[in-house]
Amino acid sequence: MIRIGIYGYGNLGKGVECAVIRAEDMELTGVFTRRDPEMLKTASGCPVYPAARISEFKGQIDVLIICGGSATDLPAMTPALAQQFNVVDSFDTHKHIPEHFARTDEAAKKGGTVAVISGGWDPGLFSLIRAYGEAVLPEGASYTFWGRGVSQGHSDAIRRIPGVADARQYTIPVEEAVQQVLSGEQPELTARQKHTRECFVALKPDADPEKIREAIVTMPDYFADYQTTVHFVSEEELKKNHAGLPHGGQVIRSGVTGMNGECRETIGFSLKLDSNPQFTGAVLTALARAAYRIGTKGETGCRTILDIPPAYLSPKSGEELRAQLL
Amino acid sequence: MIRIGIYGYGNLGKGVECAVIRAEDMELTGVFTRRDPEMLKTASGCPVYPAARISEFKGQIDVLIICGGSATDLPAMTPALAQQFNVVDSFDTHKHIPEHFARTDEAAKKGGTVAVISGGWDPGLFSLIRAYGEAVLPEGASYTFWGRGVSQGHSDAIRRIPGVADARQYTIPVEEAVQQVLSGEQPELTARQKHTRECFVALKPDADPEKIREAIVTMPDYFADYQTTVHFVSEEELKKNHAGLPHGGQVIRSGVTGMNGECRETIGFSLKLDSNPQFTGAVLTALARAAYRIGTKGETGCRTILDIPPAYLSPKSGEELRAQLL
Repeated sequence: MIRIGIYGYGNLGKGVECAVIRAEDMELTGVFTRRDPEMLKTASGCPVYPAARISEFKGQIDVLIICGGSATDLPAMTPALAQQFNVVDSFDTHKHIPEHFARTDEAAKKGGTVAVISGGWDPGLFSLIRAYGEAVLPEGASYTFWGRGVSQGHSDAIRRIPGVADARQYTIPVEEAVQQVLSGEQPELTARQKHTRECFVALKPDADPEKIREAIVTMPDYFADYQTTVHFVSEEELKKNHAGLPHGGQVIRSGVTGMNGECRETIGFSLKLDSNPQFTGAVLTALARAAYRIGTKGETGCRTILDIPPAYLSPKSGEELRAQLL
Repeated sequence: MIRIGIYGYGNLGKGVECAVIRAEDMELTGVFTRRDPEMLKTASGCPVYPAARISEFKGQIDVLIICGGSATDLPAMTPALAQQFNVVDSFDTHKHIPEHFARTDEAAKKGGTVAVISGGWDPGLFSLIRAYGEAVLPEGASYTFWGRGVSQGHSDAIRRIPGVADARQYTIPVEEAVQQVLSGEQPELTARQKHTRECFVALKPDADPEKIREAIVTMPDYFADYQTTVHFVSEEELKKNHAGLPHGGQVIRSGVTGMNGECRETIGFSLKLDSNPQFTGAVLTALARAAYRIGTKGETGCRTILDIPPAYLSPKSGEELRAQLL
C-alpha cells in the first residue's frame, strides 16, 4: 500500500481524501493542518496532525500531497517539503511554473526525493492534450476554453470590492468560437471572443449596485477585456443556487495533414466537472502513485505530468493495461 | 536530424511521408517497398528501395516506421525488423496485442533496439485517454465510439461478397447513446445501441440487389449485430463521393468523486479526421521521435504509447514545454 499524507485540508485536501479512499493501492496516513487539529474532523475519520509536526512522519509517508494555494503557499511549501518527502502539488500560476520547477527540482535532488508539480487539469490533463496535439499535428493551432464553471480567483476579486458581501463568478466559453475552432478554420481569437463572464453578487446593506457593477466590469485583467454580466442576488440565493464548484472546459488542436495541408484533423478534449476540487484531487492522487513509482526506481528531482509515462498513473500492470485498455 | 525509413508505401506510408516532411527534426532516408521500386514515385521525391535490401541500411536509419497491415504483415515484419532497427508500427488487432508485444520485445532486446507498437489513434491516442481516465476516475465506466468514418475492414468484407464490384462502409455512432453517456448516466450499451452501419455498394452486372443486401445485413461479426443500411450506387458515384478515408470517434470516461460518489465528472476525447491514414501516419511519426529518444538513453525492448513520457513525442525541450504548453 502506498502511504499518503495530505498537507492542507481545504476543498482540495478533501478532494484528495476522497480519491485516496477510492484507490485500491493506497492508504491515508493522516491530514496535516495549520489550523488547530482539535477543530478538524476529517470526512474519512483519518487522524489530523499539526503541520508543524510533519518532519516526525518521515518514513511513515510515501507521498505527501500538498493542498495549498498557488499565490503564497506552494512556492514556499513545495520546495521545503520536497527536501523530506516525495511530494505532489497543483501549482497553477502558468507563468511562474519554470521557476517553481527549478526551485523544487533543486530541493528534491538535495533531499533524494521525487516531486510532481502542477498536477490537476489545467495545468495537468489539458497540458497533456496541448503537448500530444502539437506533437502529432505540428502545423496547426491549439485552443483552450474554460467553463462553464466557477473561477475562484475572479469570485475573490469581486469580494474584495467594498460593499460586496459575497460573490460567485462563472467563466463561460463563447459557443460560436468553439464551433468555429471545431470546424477547422484556425481563427485568431481575442479574450473577448473566447469567453464571457457572469457574476452573481450579494451586496452589503446600503451598497450602490450601479457603482459596484461599474467597479466589476472595468476591473483590469479580471473583467475589462470581457463581456461581463452582473446579477445582484441575496446571500441566501447565492448559498442556495451557487454553492457548488462546477467547472470544465476544452482543449482543441486543429491542424492539417497531407502533402499540401489539404486534410483537416481536429483533436478535442473536454471536461465537465461537478466539482473542480474533487476532480483536481483525483488527478493529484493518480500523480502521487506515479511519484511513488518514480521514487522506487531510484530517480530523484522534479517532474510534471509531461515527463511521466501514462502507465505510472494507473494501478494496473503493463500486461493488464495492454490487454484491457490499449 | 532523426533519419526515418518508411517500410511499405500504401495510404499509411504516404501519411508518414507527409508527417516526416513536416517534422523540423527529421529527414527521410527512403521508402522500402515489396513492389517494383521502378514503378513507384514518392510524393516527396525521396528514394525508393526494394524491401529486400533493408539490411543494407543498418546505421543509415534511426527509426523504421513499418506501414503494413495488422492481419498478416506486422506480426511477421515487426519482430523481424526490430532485430536490426528501431521500429514503430500501428498493429491494431486489440486481442493479439499482448502476443505481438511479447514477440517484438524479445526481438528488440536481442537486437539492442527500441520498438513502439500499436501506435495510431485506436490503439494509440484513444488508449491514452482510457488509461488516464480510469486512473483519475477509478469509480466509473469508459466508452469508445467510432465514426462517422470509413471502416476499411467492413468495406473489404462487403467487397468479398460475389456480385459486389466495390463498396464503402461508414461506421456511425448513435447520437442518443453518446448524449446519454455524456450526461453521466453510465448506461450499459450493446453493440447495436452504440453504432449503426451505412453501406454504399456498387454491383456487378446481373447481381441481385436483394440477395446482396441480405448477405450484408446478416453477415456475422461484421453486420448482424447492428442496424445496417445499404445503398446501391454506381461505381462512378462511389469514386466521386466516397473516395476519402475520413474517420474519428470519441472516448468518454464517466466517473464519480466525493465521499459518497455524489459528484459526476466526465472526461471526453474526440477526433474528427479528414484522413485516417494521414492522421495515423502523423501519430506514428511522433512516436518515432519517442523511439529514437528512448534508444539514445540506451534502453531496449518493446514499448507502447502508455509507457512513453508525453514529452518524448514533442520536438520541444522540457524547458520549452513547461514554459509554453504546461
